[in-house]
Amino acid sequence: MPSPVHSAADLFGIEPSVPSVAGQRFNAKLSRLLIADGAGFATRDVERLEVTLDGVPGDRHEGIARPADSRVPWYPRGTPIRNSRQVTILAPDELMEMARRLGVDEVKPEWIGSNMVLEGVPRLTQLPPGTRLHFPSGAALAVEGENAPCRHAGAAVAAFYPDSEGMDVAFVKAAKGLRGLVAWVERAGEILAGSEVSVRVPAQKLWVR
Amino acid sequence: MPSPVHSAADLFGIEPSVPSVAGQRFNAKLSRLLIADGAGFATRDVERLEVTLDGVPGDRHEGIARPADSRVPWYPRGTPIRNSRQVTILAPDELMEMARRLGVDEVKPEWIGSNMVLEGVPRLTQLPPGTRLHFPSGAALAVEGENAPCRHAGAAVAAFYPDSEGMDVAFVKAAKGLRGLVAWVERAGEILAGSEVSVRVPAQKLWVR
Repeated sequence: MPSPVHSAADLFGIEPSVPSVAGQRFNAKLSRLLIADGAGFATRDVERLEVTLDGVPGDRHEGIARPADSRVPWYPRGTPIRNSRQVTILAPDELMEMARRLGVDEVKPEWIGSNMVLEGVPRLTQLPPGTRLHFPSGAALAVEGENAPCRHAGAAVAAFYPDSEGMDVAFVKAAKGLRGLVAWVERAGEILAGSEVSVRVPAQKLWVR
Repeated sequence: MPSPVHSAADLFGIEPSVPSVAGQRFNAKLSRLLIADGAGFATRDVERLEVTLDGVPGDRHEGIARPADSRVPWYPRGTPIRNSRQVTILAPDELMEMARRLGVDEVKPEWIGSNMVLEGVPRLTQLPPGTRLHFPSGAALAVEGENAPCRHAGAAVAAFYPDSEGMDVAFVKAAKGLRGLVAWVERAGEILAGSEVSVRVPAQKLWVR
């Protein structure tokens, strides 16, 4: 292998000045814990869940794999892909702003499939992929990323406001950046409503080609 | 639920000015494809792999789960955790710089467990978590993140330079930010050495609490 033709400073020594942030760690509170174990989209409160590497047992999004859907149109519909959307996480302040934008009193987390309501994380939806959430039992989740709002969730909200025509479509825009996160289980264990959550945000550095 | 006490502008309308980058998409080249199917750490070239959601069949890092190790000291050693380190990816320019820092002629990717050598991705090791790599067959990987250099890999390099005392330890520092990525299989399929790879980098926005 030849020696580098550029000096090290050209290649790596002087990095382009890209914005970066060191890793962050803080506590948040799991104010509600929910499961989608009914017929539809909605979730209901539970005191306790025992999550596994497959996700939330009995939940509609349980599975180590899932069939590709319209969220991943680059895969043929139905193709098994690894399930990185096992758990849906929402924040109260973001839901409040979503309601304001929609011109309604409230959007309840259980209407749009929330498994967890997390308090104390500003701009929850923007937490970077790879963030870990650690629970007191040792159970842990890894954040896949932002949950892009879809018309199905919009229709679920609209069902509670029968006079609001077109809200299913309006939701897609109004909920952008506010619809929370999806995550997968990294380590199995018990999760209790009301518990503390240790949030670990990895170091971030913007990558530009 | 009460109305917001702050105006929307306070809460969400005027976002703090945090640096961000839109999603990026470009092609790279898979110049080499390798497997760790021997006794140790090293990999060997293959023309073709059929990856599954478990990873690379027969590879030392195959598995939908893996036992927790020193990389994740917050989990008790041996606890099963979901395996997001199925595939190791390196870049030729970063290996060259690593060799320069170590004062040696070269560091071969097969010495330190590389499954893929990817050309055409500047600062490969810094690609953000959540980046997807799509192969012509439809197979796809999701980037977990930077592969932090460890003494085991350093010892593997040192074995080729018997006169370089302490290189296993020196490697940990010299290879920082240059040791490539680890990734997991999102969609199964065939991967061929020499093929094009479509790289999709998600939108990035620095998150600061």
